[in-house]
Amino acid sequence: MPSIGIVSPKTMHFAEPLQLQSGAQLRDYMLMYETYGTLNADKSNAVLVCHALNASHHVAGVYADQPKNVGWWDNMVGPGKPLDTDRFFVIGVNNLGSCFGSTGPMHNNPATGKPYGAAFPVVTVEDWVAAQARLADQLGIAQFAAVMGGSLGGMQALAWSIMYPDRLRHCVVIASTPKLSAQNIAFNDVARTAILTDPDYHGGDFYEHGVVPRNGLKVARMIGHITYLSDDDMAEKFGRKLRGVEDYKFGFGVDFEIESYLRYQGDKFSEYFDANTYLLITKALDYFDPARRHGGDLAKTLAATKAKFFLASFTTDWRFSPERSREIVQALISNRREVTYAEIDAPHGHDAFLLEDERYMNMVRAYYERVWKEQA
Amino acid sequence: MPSIGIVSPKTMHFAEPLQLQSGAQLRDYMLMYETYGTLNADKSNAVLVCHALNASHHVAGVYADQPKNVGWWDNMVGPGKPLDTDRFFVIGVNNLGSCFGSTGPMHNNPATGKPYGAAFPVVTVEDWVAAQARLADQLGIAQFAAVMGGSLGGMQALAWSIMYPDRLRHCVVIASTPKLSAQNIAFNDVARTAILTDPDYHGGDFYEHGVVPRNGLKVARMIGHITYLSDDDMAEKFGRKLRGVEDYKFGFGVDFEIESYLRYQGDKFSEYFDANTYLLITKALDYFDPARRHGGDLAKTLAATKAKFFLASFTTDWRFSPERSREIVQALISNRREVTYAEIDAPHGHDAFLLEDERYMNMVRAYYERVWKEQA
Repeated sequence: MPSIGIVSPKTMHFAEPLQLQSGAQLRDYMLMYETYGTLNADKSNAVLVCHALNASHHVAGVYADQPKNVGWWDNMVGPGKPLDTDRFFVIGVNNLGSCFGSTGPMHNNPATGKPYGAAFPVVTVEDWVAAQARLADQLGIAQFAAVMGGSLGGMQALAWSIMYPDRLRHCVVIASTPKLSAQNIAFNDVARTAILTDPDYHGGDFYEHGVVPRNGLKVARMIGHITYLSDDDMAEKFGRKLRGVEDYKFGFGVDFEIESYLRYQGDKFSEYFDANTYLLITKALDYFDPARRHGGDLAKTLAATKAKFFLASFTTDWRFSPERSREIVQALISNRREVTYAEIDAPHGHDAFLLEDERYMNMVRAYYERVWKEQA
Repeated sequence: MPSIGIVSPKTMHFAEPLQLQSGAQLRDYMLMYETYGTLNADKSNAVLVCHALNASHHVAGVYADQPKNVGWWDNMVGPGKPLDTDRFFVIGVNNLGSCFGSTGPMHNNPATGKPYGAAFPVVTVEDWVAAQARLADQLGIAQFAAVMGGSLGGMQALAWSIMYPDRLRHCVVIASTPKLSAQNIAFNDVARTAILTDPDYHGGDFYEHGVVPRNGLKVARMIGHITYLSDDDMAEKFGRKLRGVEDYKFGFGVDFEIESYLRYQGDKFSEYFDANTYLLITKALDYFDPARRHGGDLAKTLAATKAKFFLASFTTDWRFSPERSREIVQALISNRREVTYAEIDAPHGHDAFLLEDERYMNMVRAYYERVWKEQA
């Protein structure tokens, strides 16, 4: 299946301050985004794709000068793909606080002229959605055909359906959850502790010191990575295979393939990801709990929604297990919303939402067929 | 149920070098141990209790000068307890490499006159068992009524049954596994990475620098702790309860009770536990795989055993799940060994093996009744 090919990121500047959930304001900010396909005359074929922890606006295609930098959901979005850019006008937008282009901790704080660092305000899923809505305003999109995301991206799609019920016809929520569990928060907080206690973090102002808290970021990523894979998948891929040797080395270095893999992933991540962004995004995950304002009653919260829903979960996902998706499905059904739900038997844990899987892709494709037919 | 009361640790010195699995030798070493109850005339009522990651020889009772320092299995071992010290002579022994008294990285290396630090040889479960066997020799115990342990302690009991089949009549293996999975190793390696990359680790020679890699140890313990508790148990105990506030704080500090709990546990641990010991013990866990010498055939490995077995596992233990215990049970049954197996429906995850649970305690009690009757 061909990719959409060469794409280019765009930026949009917003001069009007954004009021954040924390009470703080972002005086002035920029969003980086990409679009694929063509917006139709009545602007009814737009689909917003929201990204998860370490992704960006670069959803599909490649850059002219970086032919190997393929968008993170290129298998999902493109001509003839499940989300077909021959039909839909797809938007990928980088969230506030990210380190991939939109205004974030690495950018200058207009109040001080120095990088925000840890002074960048804590942003929530709802803040991201509010910023995305302004981007839609600027693009003249009053209503999306769909808002879609996986994991943390799914939380944004869900928040869209609650905050702006008239601005999306369909809400596509994959491998997500209505809120983190204590165990989810625990893993995030260990990752944060690793970063915060790295002496190179310098209270968030490491940019000024010309260093990066690489060790903290590495450990944070290693922990995260374990939770993205299933136990079985790890067993099959790595098991107890030794790394390039016949016997144990009887030291504290790498003996097993799994160690080599995780340390490598951690090192790679620490080279390109920003520590303050990692802290911000894990806090946005922890804080997401739209039912909180209704005393935990998700059904009451989702009464505000008007969209039709597609949800999918993966059987071996122990980070956001199928049970979490089913909670959303139940709450929607109790509100008599139209819901399509697929529980996909896939071995790859939480990461499955990013991977090729025929049944999964076919379900999404079929759903977008329906979205397309409804509007045609 | 009364505790055994005031107990005192003892030490035993071994001048004969111990040949280790790695090929290295420990020239000279000391083991710290405690005993409870009375060894009978024919020395047939001795039970060895092996400890897990962060425990020690202090299995039961308290110290005269530390009335709150209760042994880690005091609910299991004592007069009238499931392992009844009115009947059995129970021995707790601290393993080599530990930081609780037996020779370890904090002790002086006789070759250099300075603390071993990272130069302390990597020890395995089998090395520990060999050292324990020498202690038994010195105490004149040719055969144990039982060797018992939970988690890593269960691995030692299992290793006893393979290495010294004639030296134990019963083998009690609780919440254990015949080998770590890739996921288990992964968690250990993240913990190790946190310690190894802490600048205060100083390549293992932090003693000389007058510092301790507290941050690394803290993160290591936080990760470990998550794997000891069940998801459900965490949800019930902590859920999304906020720590002493009504609303999110919108910072990177503690918002949730679970964060406060884990950070506190991490801090406490980093004050008393030795970083080199943590590295050593996690490596001993990773390396344990007795079936390895038989190409992974556990049944072939356990053909060497002669003991009768008691195994127990806990339904919510996702670190060493019941499936792992069942592997051992199957391999024993295929060798026509006598096996009693209890799969206990308990909510507390891996930690359940240390906690009060009526069904669990009754099963162990009933088993020791049998051990007692057989020898009477």
